[in-house]
Amino acid sequence: MICLIRYNWLMKIFHNISELITLAGGPQRGRQLGRLGAIAQGAIVCEDGKFLAVGRADELLERYPQAERVDLRGKAVVPGFVDPHTHLIWAGDRANEFEMRLQGKSYMEIMAAGGGILATLTATRQASLEQLVEESRARVRTAFALGTTTMEAKTGYGLDIETELRHLEAILELARTEPIDLVPTYMGAHAIPPECKGNTAGYTRFLCEEALPITKQWWLEHASGQALPFVDVFCEAGVFEIEETREILSAAKKLGFPLKLHADEFENLGGASLAAELGAVSADHLVKTSPEDIRRMAASETVAVSLPGTPFGLAQSQYTPAKEILAADGYLALATDLNPGTTWNESMQFIQALACRYLKLTPAQALAAATINSAKAISCEHRAGSIEPGKQADFLALTTPDYRNLSYRYGSNQVALVIKKGELYPN
Amino acid sequence: MICLIRYNWLMKIFHNISELITLAGGPQRGRQLGRLGAIAQGAIVCEDGKFLAVGRADELLERYPQAERVDLRGKAVVPGFVDPHTHLIWAGDRANEFEMRLQGKSYMEIMAAGGGILATLTATRQASLEQLVEESRARVRTAFALGTTTMEAKTGYGLDIETELRHLEAILELARTEPIDLVPTYMGAHAIPPECKGNTAGYTRFLCEEALPITKQWWLEHASGQALPFVDVFCEAGVFEIEETREILSAAKKLGFPLKLHADEFENLGGASLAAELGAVSADHLVKTSPEDIRRMAASETVAVSLPGTPFGLAQSQYTPAKEILAADGYLALATDLNPGTTWNESMQFIQALACRYLKLTPAQALAAATINSAKAISCEHRAGSIEPGKQADFLALTTPDYRNLSYRYGSNQVALVIKKGELYPN
Repeated sequence: MICLIRYNWLMKIFHNISELITLAGGPQRGRQLGRLGAIAQGAIVCEDGKFLAVGRADELLERYPQAERVDLRGKAVVPGFVDPHTHLIWAGDRANEFEMRLQGKSYMEIMAAGGGILATLTATRQASLEQLVEESRARVRTAFALGTTTMEAKTGYGLDIETELRHLEAILELARTEPIDLVPTYMGAHAIPPECKGNTAGYTRFLCEEALPITKQWWLEHASGQALPFVDVFCEAGVFEIEETREILSAAKKLGFPLKLHADEFENLGGASLAAELGAVSADHLVKTSPEDIRRMAASETVAVSLPGTPFGLAQSQYTPAKEILAADGYLALATDLNPGTTWNESMQFIQALACRYLKLTPAQALAAATINSAKAISCEHRAGSIEPGKQADFLALTTPDYRNLSYRYGSNQVALVIKKGELYPN
Repeated sequence: MICLIRYNWLMKIFHNISELITLAGGPQRGRQLGRLGAIAQGAIVCEDGKFLAVGRADELLERYPQAERVDLRGKAVVPGFVDPHTHLIWAGDRANEFEMRLQGKSYMEIMAAGGGILATLTATRQASLEQLVEESRARVRTAFALGTTTMEAKTGYGLDIETELRHLEAILELARTEPIDLVPTYMGAHAIPPECKGNTAGYTRFLCEEALPITKQWWLEHASGQALPFVDVFCEAGVFEIEETREILSAAKKLGFPLKLHADEFENLGGASLAAELGAVSADHLVKTSPEDIRRMAASETVAVSLPGTPFGLAQSQYTPAKEILAADGYLALATDLNPGTTWNESMQFIQALACRYLKLTPAQALAAATINSAKAISCEHRAGSIEPGKQADFLALTTPDYRNLSYRYGSNQVALVIKKGELYPN
């Protein structure tokens, strides 16, 4: 007899754990970053897709004798990774452009050859919903096997209303059919579309007066009661300047959207301060951010999201000034920035390895920034990012007994088993 | 009925390949690097663990109707990677030391706390053969799944005769029990052992007069006719100076060992020129090599092996001057340098991604340096490193139709299927 009942509501106890890193106690500000909440001889009890109890194995094995036992054979356990910044949804690739760049071609030459974001825009506008879903599904599955159990996903390779809504449809479809949790962000303000070239003011007006209200309406009709997506803006010189960014985010806020911001990747325009002023949930990139802007952002609840894969992907040497953000008592999180132009990387393990080397974080700080703090960067800290009773049972059993291998080693997958809402997905 | 016969002697034809990158035509000097030997609409016929025919699919399908067909579903095919520089055999890890380094501890403080190469030396001397084999087996399997079908493996974490021979025994045992090809290197001259501290001359004499002859004798008695291992020396200021290196390599050469050399990782001592002078098969690291030494090495048959994982692992900014080596018409190869101190990375895919970004190679150059040229760096170019009739049938089917993704993307495994001596190992 074949039994096809999903039994994630059955009680399970995970034991024989070398070190149980819970990251319990909420998001970690400033120099507090890196509090692991480690439990020696620990065990985890899950029921109905959630953590029921977390504590010492001897006590829990005695208290829950009815639970199905899962022996993790002396390996380390950490929370599932939360990736709070990805451009997950696109069609095609830009391997060709990568090669041109290595051969010394300038950005303008690449653009002239049909490269850059416009190449992805064209491919994505032409893609059917099905193609968009299937190409993005491959990335979701790669990320999940590498330990990402919650992932933010942006629109932004359509810019017209129809294609942007198709991105959101793809996100909803993937969330329905894959075990990962996807958190949507609307990013019609990712670039100026070719049909509005030279008319940033006009496109900004279009976003505020048409695209945002229509997107809100569509979401309310199609997302069966889910909270509104974030709205994000690419605030950079020559794209959306600070005043246009303020205009778009203010309009979004008025409509009830929560906010995010791409800030200071190439120039310091003051995006970090604007994010704090408007109460954005996060400001992301932050490579060129000034000390004054760091201070303002760090005094707020806005999370600073560093994307070290982007400078690495471009072979640049400047990274987010993480130590300064921590010294100013800010919240620091990590994300992949997965996208086809600068960094096609799904791995939050590799991001931790980079963060230790280039942001000078310790393995404990990198892990906290990739779990509980990155959950806060997408307002999921109430259900994801740590191993605590009541939260979703999202966690990882590693291939080794020492969690620090996540940063020390690189190039391979050190997640042996992903547990998502209490269900087991072995690699 | 269960059939346990290994049937790799059966004829197979691999077809439906998006691009078949053969790297045919031998090792690639200087600016020739990157000749892909691509075949459009290609197919591969294997028999008895070797390539029988490589060419156009329509012709080969007609010529070999009896061959078992393997449909690669429109994906790219490249030769199996050859990793010509690894310190595969060791016990324990140094995650603790990695954390100390990130917290700003100096090399001397780490050494004082029992860290550095001596930590691995102690763990490896204490390890049984079985432990050494099993810990190293995990790394071999990781590398193989990531596409490495031939791997060099050094001794060097024992330094006394007994432990060094145990390394060689572990290499022979792994080669017997894993599908990968392992190419051994004896590296008693990896460091000065603690019992010889301050007496480099004495340890050098011991190597030349005792260790090398004993190792040769042991090998002849235990390796059933296999060619002698390479002999390698860590030529750096404060370890083995250039004259000691010359002494050891000359003694090894007299005994019939082929030679390799760790040169110019931290200082330019002239190791690259010495390698060329002595006819070493390769000189490895080459970060600080002077233009004059590059010129001398490039004029010889000695292969320059770059190990970009090492500066990356240490977050250093200086890499091998690859462009200069190519301009001087030298042979350039890539390797991981897999080791517990500076770079615990088994992935030749990631090395190609690094080489494009930090050595400024194109994806085609990086691939050639990781296959046919790295085969030459361990004298295996007659049987490995390219897809050509008569060679071992070692090749990879990727997850994508474009081989350039091997460098463009990173953080995940882009090898879908490893074919080793004609047998299939799906990931």
